[in-house]
Amino acid sequence: MTKDSKHSDDVSLRQKYGSRLRFAREALGISQEALAEKAGLHRTYIGQVERGERNISIDNLERLADAVGEQLWEMLRP
Amino acid sequence: MTKDSKHSDDVSLRQKYGSRLRFAREALGISQEALAEKAGLHRTYIGQVERGERNISIDNLERLADAVGEQLWEMLRP
Repeated sequence: MTKDSKHSDDVSLRQKYGSRLRFAREALGISQEALAEKAGLHRTYIGQVERGERNISIDNLERLADAVGEQLWEMLRP
Repeated sequence: MTKDSKHSDDVSLRQKYGSRLRFAREALGISQEALAEKAGLHRTYIGQVERGERNISIDNLERLADAVGEQLWEMLRP
């Protein structure tokens, strides 16, 4: 069972949001670069957020949710 | 109609979260100081977050939601 598939409680909110962001981006069929451009953020930042490595701010949480056409509260929903 | 009662779309997510946090804290009957201690944050920071003045990070969004016994996704729900 890979780390990602172990979606139990101890997966941090950063990781949950990151994997939801990746899922939404891939469902749109766009690259990290295209998402970064759409959201006005840097490509490497997108990769770090998707891997749960960034303590991302509420403004950027919202910006990225908007960029993939999702509601932030739904992306954070268990 | 006061600014707060005008809960239309143009209220930023920072302000929505801030007012939900204040509502939850007051429902618990605790002061900003007590909430700050519970969450391991500074009292003035709590006031700023409640007023929507801080670009708060996902870790602190979660810490404060936990401290008032709420789910973050519910606090961000329209």
